[in-house]
Amino acid sequence: MKHFTTIADVPSLNYLLAMGKKLQQNPLAYHQTGKGKTLGLLFFNPSLRTRLSTQKAAYNLGMNVITLNVNNEGWQLELEDGTVMNQGSQEHIKEAAAVLSQYCDIIGIRSFAKLENRQEDENEIILKKFKQYACVPIVSLESATAHPLQAFADLLTLMDTAIKQPKVVLSWAPHPKALPHAVANSFCQWTLAAGYDLTITHPKGMELNAAITAGARIEHDQLKALENADFIYTKNWSSYTDYGKVNTENSDWIITEEKLKSAQFMHCLPVRRNVVVTDQVLDGTNSLAIQQAQNRTYAAQAVLLKLLTNEN
Amino acid sequence: MKHFTTIADVPSLNYLLAMGKKLQQNPLAYHQTGKGKTLGLLFFNPSLRTRLSTQKAAYNLGMNVITLNVNNEGWQLELEDGTVMNQGSQEHIKEAAAVLSQYCDIIGIRSFAKLENRQEDENEIILKKFKQYACVPIVSLESATAHPLQAFADLLTLMDTAIKQPKVVLSWAPHPKALPHAVANSFCQWTLAAGYDLTITHPKGMELNAAITAGARIEHDQLKALENADFIYTKNWSSYTDYGKVNTENSDWIITEEKLKSAQFMHCLPVRRNVVVTDQVLDGTNSLAIQQAQNRTYAAQAVLLKLLTNEN
Amino acid sequence: MKHFTTIADVPSLNYLLAMGKKLQQNPLAYHQTGKGKTLGLLFFNPSLRTRLSTQKAAYNLGMNVITLNVNNEGWQLELEDGTVMNQGSQEHIKEAAAVLSQYCDIIGIRSFAKLENRQEDENEIILKKFKQYACVPIVSLESATAHPLQAFADLLTLMDTAIKQPKVVLSWAPHPKALPHAVANSFCQWTLAAGYDLTITHPKGMELNAAITAGARIEHDQLKALENADFIYTKNWSSYTDYGKVNTENSDWIITEEKLKSAQFMHCLPVRRNVVVTDQVLDGTNSLAIQQAQNRTYAAQAVLLKLLTNEN
Repeated sequence: MKHFTTIADVPSLNYLLAMGKKLQQNPLAYHQTGKGKTLGLLFFNPSLRTRLSTQKAAYNLGMNVITLNVNNEGWQLELEDGTVMNQGSQEHIKEAAAVLSQYCDIIGIRSFAKLENRQEDENEIILKKFKQYACVPIVSLESATAHPLQAFADLLTLMDTAIKQPKVVLSWAPHPKALPHAVANSFCQWTLAAGYDLTITHPKGMELNAAITAGARIEHDQLKALENADFIYTKNWSSYTDYGKVNTENSDWIITEEKLKSAQFMHCLPVRRNVVVTDQVLDGTNSLAIQQAQNRTYAAQAVLLKLLTNEN
Repeated sequence: MKHFTTIADVPSLNYLLAMGKKLQQNPLAYHQTGKGKTLGLLFFNPSLRTRLSTQKAAYNLGMNVITLNVNNEGWQLELEDGTVMNQGSQEHIKEAAAVLSQYCDIIGIRSFAKLENRQEDENEIILKKFKQYACVPIVSLESATAHPLQAFADLLTLMDTAIKQPKVVLSWAPHPKALPHAVANSFCQWTLAAGYDLTITHPKGMELNAAITAGARIEHDQLKALENADFIYTKNWSSYTDYGKVNTENSDWIITEEKLKSAQFMHCLPVRRNVVVTDQVLDGTNSLAIQQAQNRTYAAQAVLLKLLTNEN
Repeated sequence: MKHFTTIADVPSLNYLLAMGKKLQQNPLAYHQTGKGKTLGLLFFNPSLRTRLSTQKAAYNLGMNVITLNVNNEGWQLELEDGTVMNQGSQEHIKEAAAVLSQYCDIIGIRSFAKLENRQEDENEIILKKFKQYACVPIVSLESATAHPLQAFADLLTLMDTAIKQPKVVLSWAPHPKALPHAVANSFCQWTLAAGYDLTITHPKGMELNAAITAGARIEHDQLKALENADFIYTKNWSSYTDYGKVNTENSDWIITEEKLKSAQFMHCLPVRRNVVVTDQVLDGTNSLAIQQAQNRTYAAQAVLLKLLTNEN
C-alpha cells in the first residue's frame, strides 16, 4: 500500500480489516513499530474525531505527531501549475509537499469539498498534488469525495454483528447546511467491496454518483427501504446532480424509533440531534455511533501500521 | 478520586499535597506510570500556564498529550438537551464527551465564566455534562467558578514556609476588566480546608460567594487586614452580587512595598503590573509568583497520577 | 553556548557544522539525550518549515515538544518596562519568560520584523527580554534581523559541494510584498564566517546593513555578479535604507535558466514561483531548495543537542 486516500489504494481489504480487528483487541501490540517515526497531520478544515483518533493511533504505535492547521499556522498554498505567484499565495503545493516529506514519514491531509464546482472537487487537487510531490505515503483525513478512515471504522463496527448477510441501509438525512458526499461515498464503496447487501434510500433528486453506488439497491421510499433492516446508517449529503444544493424539503426523513424498529443505528458524527435522528434513537441501546468513533482509532492504526511496515 | 473539578472531588487533601511535594523533589519518579496513556486538553478559552504546565506534568508521567482549541480547530457544541439542532451548533456535548473518552484516558477542560448570568456560570454546564457523558476522569483547567489546579499549586507554595500558623490575606485588586471569581474561590476553599488562618479584604460590595468564604475573616479596611500578614495573595474579581460588574473606583488597592512590608507576595499570573501590584513588589525578593507557576506542574502531575493509579 | 539567536552566540562554528553533518548521517544517534526534557516553541508569526523541522529535531533527540501560538492561544504581552498595564496587554514579557522557563528546558521563539521602524526591529525586544528573564536557553526561530537556523542549514547544504572555494552569490529577488532582511543577513554572516567567497548583487538602493555585509563583494550588475557562480542564493528583501519599502521596479531580477547556467540554485522557501525564480530552475536538477529544507532538521538538532549537553 503506497497511499491511503481511497479504497482503490488498498491492495487487500481483508488484510486491513483483520489488522483493524487485531488492534481493537490489543492496541499496543505494535507500540515499538513507529519509534523514531513522525506522522504529520495537515488540516485545511476543522476536525475533532479524525484529529484525535489519528493522533491516538500514532501514539499507540510509538510514533511522534506534528499537527499543522494550514490556514491559521502556515500560509496560503498555490495549487495551479505555471502561475506567476504575485498574488495571495505564498508557497506552491509542490514545495509544501516535498518539504513536509523531509520531516514526516507519513502525511495525513484533511481537505473538504467546497461544493461550488463538482469537477474541481472531484479533481482532489490537494491530495493529488501531495501524492505527486511528496516522497512519503499520504493518508486522507477526509477529502472532497472520500473519507476512507471513517468507512474502515464503519466496517469494523458492522463486522461485530452475529447476523449472517445483514441488510444494511444507507438512509439520506435532512440537514440545514450543504454537506459533502465523502462519508456516503466511502460507506458505499467499502460495504460493497466487503460484500454487504446495501440499500440506499434518498428523496428523488438526491442521487449520489452512480459510479460509486453501482451494486447497491436504490429505493426512494424510505419506509420500504428500511423494512427488515439490520443496520441503518443515516447521513445527509447535498445534491450531487444540482451540485451542492441543500434539500430543505424532507425533514420527515429523520430517523425515529418507529423507523428504527430493532435495527442498529449508525452515524459517523457529528450529528444534529432531532434533525437527522431523534434523541431517543441516538441515546438508545441500538446506537452504534460511539462504537464507530472508537473504531476510528483502530482503523487509523491499521493504516499507519501497514504504511510503516510495507510500502507495497 | 473520580474527577478533579473542585475541592469536593478530593478524597484526601493531605495525600494530594504530600504527593505534590514528592513530585516537586523528583518530577520523574513516576515517568513510566503514564506510558501508553493519553491526556486530552480541551480549551474553550486561551491558556498559557495551565496549557504548558499540564502538558509538562503529563510528559513527566510518560503520557501522550492531545490538545484541541475547540473554537478554532473543532466546532460549536450544543449544550442544551432536547434541542432541535438546526441552527449553529454542529455537535451535542453528549457525543463530544463520549467520543473524546474513546481516545483519551483523562480529559482536561478549560471553560471560563461568561460573567453575564450568575446562575448559568454556577451551573458549570460544560464540566457537568462532560462528567456525565464521558467515561474517563475530567480535570478542570479552570472553570467558571473554580481553578483547583491553581489553588493546589498555591498551597504547595504556602507549605514551604517555616512560619507556624502564618497569617494569609487574600486582597482584592483593581483591574480594568471584568474577571471571574474562580481563582479567588479556589484559593479560599483550599486554604480553609488546609486549616490556614485566612483573612479576605475587599471594598464593600465586592463580597465573594458567602458559602465559599465561610470560615475566613472578612475585613473591609485593607491596611488593617494586611497588618502582620505573612502572605498577601492579591487578585481581582468582578462583583458577585452585581454579577460581573467592574469596580473601577478602588485603584488605591494596588499592592505596594509600603503595604507588603515583610510579607510574601503571591499572585496566580497573568498580572497587570502597576495596576494590581507595583513593579517593585513583583520584581522584589518577596514575590512568590514564579514559584507558584512552577508548582503548577507538580500540582497537575499529582492530580494526573492519582487519577491514573486509583479511581476511587 | 548559552543561547542561539545570532551567529555571535556560537562559540565554535566548526563544531556546530561538524555536529550537523554527523546528525545528517545518523539522526537518531543521540535519541536518548533529550529524554525527560521539553522544548517550548513560541510563535508570534506563522511557520511551516521552522515549526516542523524543529519539532522533528527535538523528537530525534527524544525531547517532548510544547507549541504555543501566542496570538491565538495565549494573550497579548507587554514589552515595555514600567508601564501601567491598564490597556490591552494582559501579561508582561518578564513573567511570560520566567514562567515558561519553569516548564521548558529550551525555548524557541519566532518573532518577525514589523518593517515599520528600523530601530525598533533591530532592538529585537522579544528575544532580548526572553534572554534576560528566562533562565533557560533561547533559540531564535527567526527574529526581526536574523534567521540563524536557516543559515546553518544553508551552510550544511553548501558544504556538500566538491568544489574548492566555490563562488557564492546572494542575488536580490523581486517580490510583491515587503519582506524582512533576516534570511539575507544570516546567510551573509554565516557564509562569511565560514570563509566562503561571497558576492552580493542587488539593485542600487537595496543595500543591506553594511555592518553585516562587510567582507562580501557588492556588485549592482546582476549578470556580472552571476558570472562563474557555483551557487546562486536568491532572496527578496525590502529596502533597508528607506526602511521596509517594497521595490517593485526590478521584476527582471528573477532567476532564469539563462542566468543560472551550471550553478546550483538555493532558496530558503517559501518561494513565489515565476516571480523570484522560474519553474524551470526550481524544478530543475540544479535546485537545492528541498535539500536546504531537509538540512533544517539537522541544523536545529545540532543546536538543541549543544544546548542540552553544554551550556558554555
